[in-house]
Amino acid sequence: MNFSMIRYTLGWLLIFESVFFSVPLITAAVYWEGAFFSFLLAALVSLGAGLLLTMKKPNNTDLYAKDGFVIVSLSWIIISIFGALPFMFTGSTTSFIDALFETVSGFTTTGASIFVEVESLPKSILIWRSFTHWIGGMGVLVFIMAFLPLSGGQNMHIMRAESPGPEVSKLVPRVKKTATILYIIYFALTVAMFITLLCSGMNIFDAVNTAFATAGTGGFGFKNDSCASYSAAQQIIVTVFMLVFSINFNSYYLVLKLKLKDAFNSEIKVFLLVVATAVAIITANISSMFESVWEALRHAAFTVASLISTTGFSIVNFDLWPELSKTVLVIVMFIGACAGSTGGGIKVSRIIILFKGMSRELRTLVHPKQVKKITIDSRPVDREVTRSVNAYMVTFILLFTASLLAISFDNMDLVTNFTAVTATINNVGPGLGGVGPASNFSAFSPISKLVLTFNMLAGRLELFPMLILFSPSTYKKS
Amino acid sequence: MNFSMIRYTLGWLLIFESVFFSVPLITAAVYWEGAFFSFLLAALVSLGAGLLLTMKKPNNTDLYAKDGFVIVSLSWIIISIFGALPFMFTGSTTSFIDALFETVSGFTTTGASIFVEVESLPKSILIWRSFTHWIGGMGVLVFIMAFLPLSGGQNMHIMRAESPGPEVSKLVPRVKKTATILYIIYFALTVAMFITLLCSGMNIFDAVNTAFATAGTGGFGFKNDSCASYSAAQQIIVTVFMLVFSINFNSYYLVLKLKLKDAFNSEIKVFLLVVATAVAIITANISSMFESVWEALRHAAFTVASLISTTGFSIVNFDLWPELSKTVLVIVMFIGACAGSTGGGIKVSRIIILFKGMSRELRTLVHPKQVKKITIDSRPVDREVTRSVNAYMVTFILLFTASLLAISFDNMDLVTNFTAVTATINNVGPGLGGVGPASNFSAFSPISKLVLTFNMLAGRLELFPMLILFSPSTYKKS
Repeated sequence: MNFSMIRYTLGWLLIFESVFFSVPLITAAVYWEGAFFSFLLAALVSLGAGLLLTMKKPNNTDLYAKDGFVIVSLSWIIISIFGALPFMFTGSTTSFIDALFETVSGFTTTGASIFVEVESLPKSILIWRSFTHWIGGMGVLVFIMAFLPLSGGQNMHIMRAESPGPEVSKLVPRVKKTATILYIIYFALTVAMFITLLCSGMNIFDAVNTAFATAGTGGFGFKNDSCASYSAAQQIIVTVFMLVFSINFNSYYLVLKLKLKDAFNSEIKVFLLVVATAVAIITANISSMFESVWEALRHAAFTVASLISTTGFSIVNFDLWPELSKTVLVIVMFIGACAGSTGGGIKVSRIIILFKGMSRELRTLVHPKQVKKITIDSRPVDREVTRSVNAYMVTFILLFTASLLAISFDNMDLVTNFTAVTATINNVGPGLGGVGPASNFSAFSPISKLVLTFNMLAGRLELFPMLILFSPSTYKKS
Repeated sequence: MNFSMIRYTLGWLLIFESVFFSVPLITAAVYWEGAFFSFLLAALVSLGAGLLLTMKKPNNTDLYAKDGFVIVSLSWIIISIFGALPFMFTGSTTSFIDALFETVSGFTTTGASIFVEVESLPKSILIWRSFTHWIGGMGVLVFIMAFLPLSGGQNMHIMRAESPGPEVSKLVPRVKKTATILYIIYFALTVAMFITLLCSGMNIFDAVNTAFATAGTGGFGFKNDSCASYSAAQQIIVTVFMLVFSINFNSYYLVLKLKLKDAFNSEIKVFLLVVATAVAIITANISSMFESVWEALRHAAFTVASLISTTGFSIVNFDLWPELSKTVLVIVMFIGACAGSTGGGIKVSRIIILFKGMSRELRTLVHPKQVKKITIDSRPVDREVTRSVNAYMVTFILLFTASLLAISFDNMDLVTNFTAVTATINNVGPGLGGVGPASNFSAFSPISKLVLTFNMLAGRLELFPMLILFSPSTYKKS
């Protein structure tokens, strides 16, 4: 294990975090909030710790696979711990576990909150919450590694561990350049959304918050009713952008390169098909609850987009919808967004691989001599990828079950527990019942909150890095 | 596809079924029930259809893998359709879908019932319900194939498709002899249970019913309160035998051969560990609800044994227990019994393989150059088995999700729907909420009942045979 390299990277991470604090600092300055000093303190603490850790440059910058996993998981934990400081310093909460839950929920773009009431929080705290979504959406480490004054191919390990989805494809030969292209697309789309919201009549503060939280598919609301009080036009804008940020960013690059056929791949087709089917079923199912079919359609579309993109905004308490609609919503929470987007969940490409794997298994049983490879977009899927997707699913189930058991000690009902785990491991935010859109996660015990915090991190980092961090075999000499 | 061989086997199946009807026929005769004529009619219809189908012996008796799957699935459907006739003829129900649900629930050893009230049913109907459990427990086709006047190694395909668990091991070189040994063990254990119950003061009718339903890990009760009115001693006897029938029958053979070390394999150890842990957690969790810890222990042990063995008997309404206990119960329903027993569920050996697969995946990520095979009891697990267990899990999840969605049209609550699918696909019987031990499946719509019927068959036959039967690619020329 290359401990000095781990230390060094974590140090740089904290230096970057102190820079990130400038966004709430500026906000606090603009609105003359006392929280300014809390953020200043947090920034100084981060900077100090960062400088201390980066004082000595490591001699050996080689990173093995396991170093990559450990760096990624530790980074997400450390950035969350320091990111939680402003919640404590401003007195927004007195419980550090709550502050940590909220920050992890931010960086992992989950959007599950422990605040019963958000409108009374300082504006700088609100913008910090949304900004953590934006930072976490694309992943912060690849960004940092691209800037770090180090050479070598170690970045690929980090990128693989931090990027959502079963495969990482480099757009251009160099990881650094691939990362830069993706961040530019991310930035441009966020700005586009911000401007569109301004045009719809939203004020700057609200538009910045909404754009940050949507771009990262996070879903922290800055109003107690999430997006319910937005105008219909604004809700439609959010709906569209939640879907935009659920699509593999590689496709946008391919569109810019005018490779339209490659851009519109099977994953996007399946994703849009699932969205359309879910919206159609729910619209039909809830239409009698609304004045017109169009009203029902708007609510269904917003909710499906919100949950499949794993953003978690709400404009209506969907916990009151009929069971069919709720079941569809729970299913889309598991499916999640496309790989290579900012969204969470199992990812559409994994679902496609799982379906094709099942269908191949059936064919193999029936015609044992005609075993064919799985293909997606006429390209064969590597056996390693299939195996790793299967391992992912199994790990997902085992972690899900263990978490469900752990939080059931609190004696909440099964629907609340089940959807609390669903909403955290898939980085969605709200669930049903006690964690429905009209409720929040504050009622859980501290231990359950830690379990759910672990789930959010595990879900965001595609399970394995977090498990590897806590697996004793990682620290054995090989 | 060897259609004449399929026809011929189904014919013999019906002839055997007409013989099976002798058990309720004798019961009806003993108790002077009018149902006698209903069973006589059902037996004659089965015999007639059977004779018709077996009139012409097939020229070609070769069976390919897909023929094996189709024969197995069709057999279980056909035996259930004819087995449902007495329910119609006696007027126990007027809905054929209900009668089919009940019979499939019987043969698949699920024990989920559509009868709100069972004590008013004829005794011959009650014994038929229990007897279907006993027939279905060990699987009827291997039995029939062993008797059929045909040569060739085709039996192995059938046995593989009909036996629970990821692997079929032949105890002795010949399939026929292996099957015979297993049936003898099954019969002997059933008789042992019957005698033990008689000694506890139970009458013959009750003891026969209880022994049949326990041996098959079925769980149809002949009283409205299942086993609640049994004496404490009788409940303990049932607890023990539910566990006895959850253990791989191969182990009993090894015990007889005095190979004690081989008999007590990892699967049994893990199974007993899970049972002990679940009982301990639940006992602690419910102790305040009972007069003494021993009372709590007895109730916890019975319920855990009932649900992990997928029998489904109840002595208490566990739906009223705290969430932790209910969560543990739902988890053990999924785990299920050992492979090669009469129990259902995912099976302990699969869970072990899944865990070891996950742990190997983590090790592979950390130390990419040290990839080791998974071993169980120091024997390497074949890659094919690992792959097929993964495929099983994925198929399980997809079928589970599809079923959940399909039955949610009835607008029952999520806990009811979720546990209804859990209880049928794992062949348990009762679930929670609307399908809890104090309720039954009668409230579902006919379509949902068909979906759940499919689940019971798919679960009993380890998913693939039923899916292959309905997959168009099966009928394409290869």
